[in-house]
Formats: sequence, C-alpha cells, structure tokens
Amino acid sequence: MNNHSFGFSIHATDGHARLGTLYTSNGIIDTPAFMPVGTSATVKAMTPESVESTGAQIILSNTYHLMLRPTAERIHALGGLHQFMNWHRPILTDSGGYQVMSLAKLRKISENGVIFQSHIDGSRHELTPERSINIQYLLGSDISMCFDECTPFPVDEYVARESMLLSMRWAKRSKEAFIQREGYGLFGIVQGGVYKSLREESCSKLLDIGFDGYAIGGLAVGEGQALMFKTLDVTNQFLSNDKPRYLMGVGKPPDIVGAVQRGVDMFDCVLPTRSGRNGQVFTPNGPMNLNNACHKDDSRPIDSECNCYTCAHYSRSYLNHLLKCKEILGAVLLTWHNLHFYQTLMKNLRKAIHEQTLTQFVEQFHLTYGVSEQNDTQA
Amino acid sequence: MNNHSFGFSIHATDGHARLGTLYTSNGIIDTPAFMPVGTSATVKAMTPESVESTGAQIILSNTYHLMLRPTAERIHALGGLHQFMNWHRPILTDSGGYQVMSLAKLRKISENGVIFQSHIDGSRHELTPERSINIQYLLGSDISMCFDECTPFPVDEYVARESMLLSMRWAKRSKEAFIQREGYGLFGIVQGGVYKSLREESCSKLLDIGFDGYAIGGLAVGEGQALMFKTLDVTNQFLSNDKPRYLMGVGKPPDIVGAVQRGVDMFDCVLPTRSGRNGQVFTPNGPMNLNNACHKDDSRPIDSECNCYTCAHYSRSYLNHLLKCKEILGAVLLTWHNLHFYQTLMKNLRKAIHEQTLTQFVEQFHLTYGVSEQNDTQA
Repeated sequence: MNNHSFGFSIHATDGHARLGTLYTSNGIIDTPAFMPVGTSATVKAMTPESVESTGAQIILSNTYHLMLRPTAERIHALGGLHQFMNWHRPILTDSGGYQVMSLAKLRKISENGVIFQSHIDGSRHELTPERSINIQYLLGSDISMCFDECTPFPVDEYVARESMLLSMRWAKRSKEAFIQREGYGLFGIVQGGVYKSLREESCSKLLDIGFDGYAIGGLAVGEGQALMFKTLDVTNQFLSNDKPRYLMGVGKPPDIVGAVQRGVDMFDCVLPTRSGRNGQVFTPNGPMNLNNACHKDDSRPIDSECNCYTCAHYSRSYLNHLLKCKEILGAVLLTWHNLHFYQTLMKNLRKAIHEQTLTQFVEQFHLTYGVSEQNDTQA
Repeated sequence: MNNHSFGFSIHATDGHARLGTLYTSNGIIDTPAFMPVGTSATVKAMTPESVESTGAQIILSNTYHLMLRPTAERIHALGGLHQFMNWHRPILTDSGGYQVMSLAKLRKISENGVIFQSHIDGSRHELTPERSINIQYLLGSDISMCFDECTPFPVDEYVARESMLLSMRWAKRSKEAFIQREGYGLFGIVQGGVYKSLREESCSKLLDIGFDGYAIGGLAVGEGQALMFKTLDVTNQFLSNDKPRYLMGVGKPPDIVGAVQRGVDMFDCVLPTRSGRNGQVFTPNGPMNLNNACHKDDSRPIDSECNCYTCAHYSRSYLNHLLKCKEILGAVLLTWHNLHFYQTLMKNLRKAIHEQTLTQFVEQFHLTYGVSEQNDTQA
C-alpha cells in the first residue's frame, strides 16, 4: 500500500486499543490520532506550520461554515481547501449535519434533507446527502463524512430509532453520491443514542453499505463519560476490526484515553484551541487557568517538561499578562501549547500500545492528571 | 567600537540622508531603521521570531502601558523586558509623556510631572522625569527617552514655547536620573511645534545637556506632510551630525521616504501593525484594502514580488476570507506582510544611500506608490 491509496493498517494492539496507520491522498496519519479543528479554513490562531510543529498530521474542517463562507465553489475554483489554507497534509471534513442543528436558524428537516437559514446573514440554504458530499468533493477533503442527523440527548428510544434510520437512509445516499477516487475515503456515522440495540442496527446497516471508516456519532452531547464509554463498548463490538473508528467531537484528555482503550482510532475536538484562546491550558497535572492572579509573578513555563514553542520561551507571568491585555499573541501561544499537549498525549498512547504498556500508562495518566470534569467537550 | 558599547557610525551620505549603524547592548541596528511598535510587551499579532523574520532589528515598547500592566517592577523581577517578551535584540522605550496626554484620564501637569488616572482601571499614578527614567531602567531598555510634554497642535507660539521649555527642564532632570551603563543610551526630544526659533532653542538646550541621540517630537499630530517636512528641515540643521535622529510616530511610507531624505535615521509607527489588523496592506503601488469584495476570487498574493511569509503562501481571496470571519490568522498574516514591507522599504533606502542613488529611488517610489494621504499616521 503506498501513500496515495486510501486504506488502514493495524500494526499492534493492546487490549482493545490499536496502533495503526491511515493512508490518504495527502499523506499518512499515525493512529490513534487527534485532529485539530480548523472550522473556517484555519485552525484558529495558528499558522499551518505551527500546527504541523505540534505533530498534527490531519485537521478537521467544517462543511457548514465553508459552504456559507467563502463557499465551496470559491474554494474549488482556487484549487481546493489544501491550497486555499496552505495545509498540505490530510483534511477530514464533517458533513454539516451537526452544525445545521446547533448553529443554523429556522431549520426544516425532511426526508430529502435540511433547509435552513445561515447564522451569519439569514440567507436560505439546503443540505442534503448529495449536496454535502458534493461540497466535500469541491473542497478536496481526503476524508468525507456521510450527511447525518445528530440525534439529540436525552431522547426516547422511538425518536432515537427514527432519527437513526433517517441517518442510515442518508448514509446510503451519501455513499451513492461519493465519487470514488484513489486515496480519498468516505466514513459512515453510527447513530442510535445510548441504546445498544439501535447502535447494533446502525452498525449493521452501515456495514452493509460499506465505508472506508466508521464514526461514532451522537456522543459527547451531555450524556457524561460513563455512558459515553458504555456506548463505545457496545458500538465497537459491532464494527469491523479492519477499518478506522472515529469518535466525533471528543474530547477531554481523560475521554480520549478511555476511548483509545476501547478501540477508537481518531478524535477531533475544539477544546485545545477554544480553551487556549480563553486562557485554559492542559498539563500532565490537569488543566490550569492562566487568567488566575497566582500566575502574575510566576517565572516558570506552563510545563517545564514540555518542549513546545510556548514552554521553551515564555513564562506563566508573561502569558497571564497577554491574557489580561487581550493580546492576540496570548491566544497564539496558549493554543500552540494545548495542541502540542494533545499531540504528545496521542504519541504517548501510540508508544504505550506499541510497547504493550497501555494499562500502566493509563494508570499513571490518571494518577497525575486526575479525572477532571470541569469542561464540556462538544464542539 | 564593539557591539556592546553604545554609539553611532555614519558610513555614507547621499544629500542629507545618512547610512549608519547604531550600536547597543543587545546588538546593532542598520539605519535608517523602522521600529515596529510592541506596546504591551508584544508586537501585536506577531511572535518575536516572525518580527525578526521581517528584518526588524529593534522594536519600540511603551512605558505608559507597561508601568500600568504588568508594572515595571514585575518585569524587572522577571529578568527585564527582553527576557519577559522573548525579544533579544535592542528595545527602545518611549517615556510615557505622549500616552499620558492621549490615553490617561484626569491629568494634572505641574513642574514636577504629571499625575493621572489609568485608562484601564482608574488607579492613580504619577510620571516625572525621574520616575520615567527609572521605569525604563527597570525594563532594561537599550534606548531610553527623556520624559517630555507633547505640545498640542495647533498651538500659538507662546504656549508652544512654555511647553518646550518645560520639556527642556524635564530633559535635564531625565539626563541626571539616567544611570550611565555601557551599551545603553538616552535620547533627548526636540520640541517647539512648527516654530523655527523654538526648534532652534530646543536643539541648543538639548545639545548643551548632551544626549546619545535626538528625537524630533511633536510632529505627525495633524500638521500635514508639508509642514512636517519643513519643520524637519529647520530642526535637523540645528542638530549635531554625529548622533542618530529619530522622528517619533512616523509614519506612512511617503513620510518615511521624505524624512530619510532630510537626514532622519530612526522611525516608529503603529501604522503597519494596526492597519494589518484592520485589513489594509502596503504594496509598492500603495495601500490596498483586503476587506473589499474585489479580492474575493483573487488567487494572487498581495504582492507577487514580495518574499514575505504571507505572500509566499496565501491568496488575496484567502486573506479576504479570514478578515470576513474575523479570524486571528488574518491579523497575523497582514501584520506580517506590512512589517516586511516597511523593513524592505528601509533596506532599499539604505541600499540607495550606499549607492548614491537616493534621488532616483525616491522618484521611482513616488511614480509607483503615489503620495497617498488617506491614513493618519500617529500612534
């Protein structure tokens, strides 16, 4: 298998956890992998080179935002999303389904798709499975996602099943609309809420259609870590072992660690970037809020063991000062550190799987990190 | 003369223009030089490395802002401003005089100094010549500026003279308060409004006191380019030829070009950084507003001849998109280009002086750039 053919290889396992490589048209991705979020064709506050310096091999970008601004057609005419934003490694795009539900106004859902008003200017748009896949084609996404309806939480089993079945019909239409090209992949999205039988039914329908990878959708929407892990356990057992598994919108470091233990290969979340802009940073000892006055005179870096650009050059005192002054460099430096922290966590998880020491690694992680729950993780 | 002894050498002249080197404790500066403004211990939207990549050899930082936040004492305790902000080349600090007049509230000026309220939290502070020089010492500035009163414009000759004489008495106290150290310098500031006799009197008094360089203050406050140039002509004839001359708060590219022709060696201005954050960029053909819709589909860089990071990687279309989305990267990339443009202009001016072709260079500059006047240049 060369770098230009889409595919997935598993090199080692430790329990349910897998060490793998994902091959795409624009390069490889070591898994388990974390994808920084670049919503509007930029990972907020970062240059592509600084994103790459953290170890990121793939980013996620948002179909909903890009279709509204600057439009998929414009990006296509300018050479595609990689060229447009100067990121020459793989890009995964979501389908727009989640953002239509969470951001757009005056939504009208039908069998055909969703008609909605832009949250930016109120203009009217439509997303269907065919249109979502077309947009992702125009963007040049290495990995496209099926258009789905994000099932709300909490929801009763009947509603969860109707929603899941609609997403499955849309998954079939997404697959039919997807133009097969060497090195490009399409992922299905498992729905079914927290109901085991629905997750099983959803997996079965997706496997019948056949995808290059399978995302677990509808989690990290407020159900809590315990229920998320339980749903992961039941879902992953119904998925094929030889395709990548992607847990959408997750999450906090302890969520990622637990999900890797349960066999998840890919993650995305706005937490490291959004938190960074707000002054929260991640450390091996848990999150730290640099807005706090206790950092004003602290000459230490965020983490003396960290070898990111920020920790190499700047004190907590300086970072606190930048936050107080609302200086752009504060957002840049904290985002940089946080993305580096996340990529280092993934590297350490991969190393532990390779060395068959994941259990010890996770024990040690929890001893130092604690199991902090103070932040919501959903994008 | 080595790099650690403060001083100034002139290597070539072309008309009144001078090609020189300024030697300071933290390195040399090729003159004529442009100093990017790093008000709150950061050149807004830039890392120090990206500032350096544009060719900048010295930055300016603001005493007024730093004394209020995070305080000079805190920066001193953390190793000084160079260490604090990770900029290891020379730093010039202003004296706070201008910002006290333009930003602070409830000012009370006396012979002793200025009592004022912080524009941030209303707290009460005092700046005197002694306190301003002390703050600049605590910051570790390579070049300190005398504390002065910025004479308003327009103003009659009597008021201008009283203001100038106060600044001259403060200049004497500033000199007495300045702790002489190898490699560190103190500049006097010529005042006197647009009145030739007052400028002459101010120069005479400053030369009697004796400084390492002389700034021309009180210009770029609304008097217009013609009157600014005229005042420069009369002021520079009264200054010693062997010390650097610094035109404070200037300016637009045509202002800088004309001032270099008149013998000015140093400049600072927020224009390239502030304009960049707002979407205005500088090109050899004049300023361009990237917010305009005409750039939406333009795949060209800002300037195809420019070799800055931004022009190497990004289209006008992408930059327009970032501005529309208010993305931080937009501010970063446009600031980066603008600082590069300013440093390239200074490099070309130095080359022209070296080659004795300044007249032709300036003619060519105006042919392509025009003499645009659409922006105010004062910080």
